[in-house]
Amino acid sequence: MTPRDPDFAARIATSFAQQGFLAHLGAELAEVTPGRCVIACPFRAELTQQHGVFHGGLLTTLADTAAGYAAMSLLPPGGEVLSIEFKITFLRPGAGVAAVARGEVLRPGRTITASRADVLMRQADGSEILAATMLATFMAAQPETR
Amino acid sequence: MTPRDPDFAARIATSFAQQGFLAHLGAELAEVTPGRCVIACPFRAELTQQHGVFHGGLLTTLADTAAGYAAMSLLPPGGEVLSIEFKITFLRPGAGVAAVARGEVLRPGRTITASRADVLMRQADGSEILAATMLATFMAAQPETR
Amino acid sequence: MTPRDPDFAARIATSFAQQGFLAHLGAELAEVTPGRCVIACPFRAELTQQHGVFHGGLLTTLADTAAGYAAMSLLPPGGEVLSIEFKITFLRPGAGVAAVARGEVLRPGRTITASRADVLMRQADGSEILAATMLATFMAAQPETR
Amino acid sequence: MTPRDPDFAARIATSFAQQGFLAHLGAELAEVTPGRCVIACPFRAELTQQHGVFHGGLLTTLADTAAGYAAMSLLPPGGEVLSIEFKITFLRPGAGVAAVARGEVLRPGRTITASRADVLMRQADGSEILAATMLATFMAAQPETR
Repeated sequence: MTPRDPDFAARIATSFAQQGFLAHLGAELAEVTPGRCVIACPFRAELTQQHGVFHGGLLTTLADTAAGYAAMSLLPPGGEVLSIEFKITFLRPGAGVAAVARGEVLRPGRTITASRADVLMRQADGSEILAATMLATFMAAQPETR
Repeated sequence: MTPRDPDFAARIATSFAQQGFLAHLGAELAEVTPGRCVIACPFRAELTQQHGVFHGGLLTTLADTAAGYAAMSLLPPGGEVLSIEFKITFLRPGAGVAAVARGEVLRPGRTITASRADVLMRQADGSEILAATMLATFMAAQPETR
Repeated sequence: MTPRDPDFAARIATSFAQQGFLAHLGAELAEVTPGRCVIACPFRAELTQQHGVFHGGLLTTLADTAAGYAAMSLLPPGGEVLSIEFKITFLRPGAGVAAVARGEVLRPGRTITASRADVLMRQADGSEILAATMLATFMAAQPETR
Repeated sequence: MTPRDPDFAARIATSFAQQGFLAHLGAELAEVTPGRCVIACPFRAELTQQHGVFHGGLLTTLADTAAGYAAMSLLPPGGEVLSIEFKITFLRPGAGVAAVARGEVLRPGRTITASRADVLMRQADGSEILAATMLATFMAAQPETR
């Protein structure tokens, strides 16, 4: 997929840095290429559910973020995305040393972009286990039109 | 709906207190009755997206929690719930002094419970605006069977 | 909700009549008011799954149609809707003399409308049982812009 | 994935033949292997929406069927599946000479199976275009336990 904004990566990095919630979680923007984005988040006790593994809400936030920035990477200069909706299916427990969300665009559009994301649990040995998968819809927004 | 465990509220309060992620967010277990649960979370900068309002991942986490404890309130003693999947639709920006998620059971079951939740934005004047709505599915788990 | 097109009901009836699939199912446009739409479909053997009750795909089609025409009822003259996505949760078996889908708009918009729908099973005695519930997203389309 | 019932294909063919709705649509069980299932449906006017292409409800029914039989292929003898819920995202118009749904299991389970499906539009030249994608959840049911 060809980006319409050559500076898409800088635009996404700026947006990421403005999200107080992502900093509070310790999420990191690991990689962004046209139509794809990877978000990683190291494990810590502040991110757990009642059994001591990653909380589903944390996995969901990472997946939404990765899927959304994948969509944003294909927008023209200044373009931002709003989450319209998403659905996530949890496949395995969120047990790992880090959670890694890999988002990709399924269908770019001028107004609406459909994306998907997988959330993987990175193990101590570097292997990754699929923990959840998401389908998401985003609406393009220009700062001046919001 | 009639609870099968008279101590359901204590069971849920214990589970809530064990979730490190909910404490990290500042979420509070506001109310739990048979088949219903309300979770509230005061606004703060650590919970925001790039435009300074509540992050969608935060709203989602509250909705999942409220829907899940609504389901858990109807389980027999010792019963817990696992999130199988959910879908959330964002209706309005997450702007308010607090986010309030109201979950309720649509269809209780021995194995599977379907719930829904609304997320409302509490305004400074006490009024509430619907910001998002969720459909969710939970699986019952007994501690000894997991 | 106030319609922007006083002839919304005629516009929807025309669209309904153009859908070969709905005729093939025997679906009927039972009622349309601003922001709401009811679709009914009498039971027959051609609509069943392997246990002789309404097929989930039939219930889904009715729900999508009711939710979509609810959205279309609020559009300006000439406006149509495209289904972007939906999620349906099945709550009870599709057993009844007719399936009735009741759609309503959750949040109208110039471009995107969020709707929901319930699917009820009408029993021989006239009572109705909730069988499924849907959240759906629609995009407005003007015939000249497609 | 290894089937627990060597006769899974015959079991699925029998179930397929019992679904009156699928015959009414003209759907065909094209292929079933362990953890995967393909359903095809030739185009005809009875399956269209108001613009003369495949109706979204038809695509959804094919996807649900393919995803469900993919799940059923991994169950022990006698096992059937019930659709708990699904979400479908429509990516492109349903224009083609046939609709082909390809379902696969994401995570098999004793009670719950998560599947996905893609719906492709077969063109006159034999090429296929992705029109929709689904995430779905199924519950295993033994005939004697329902």
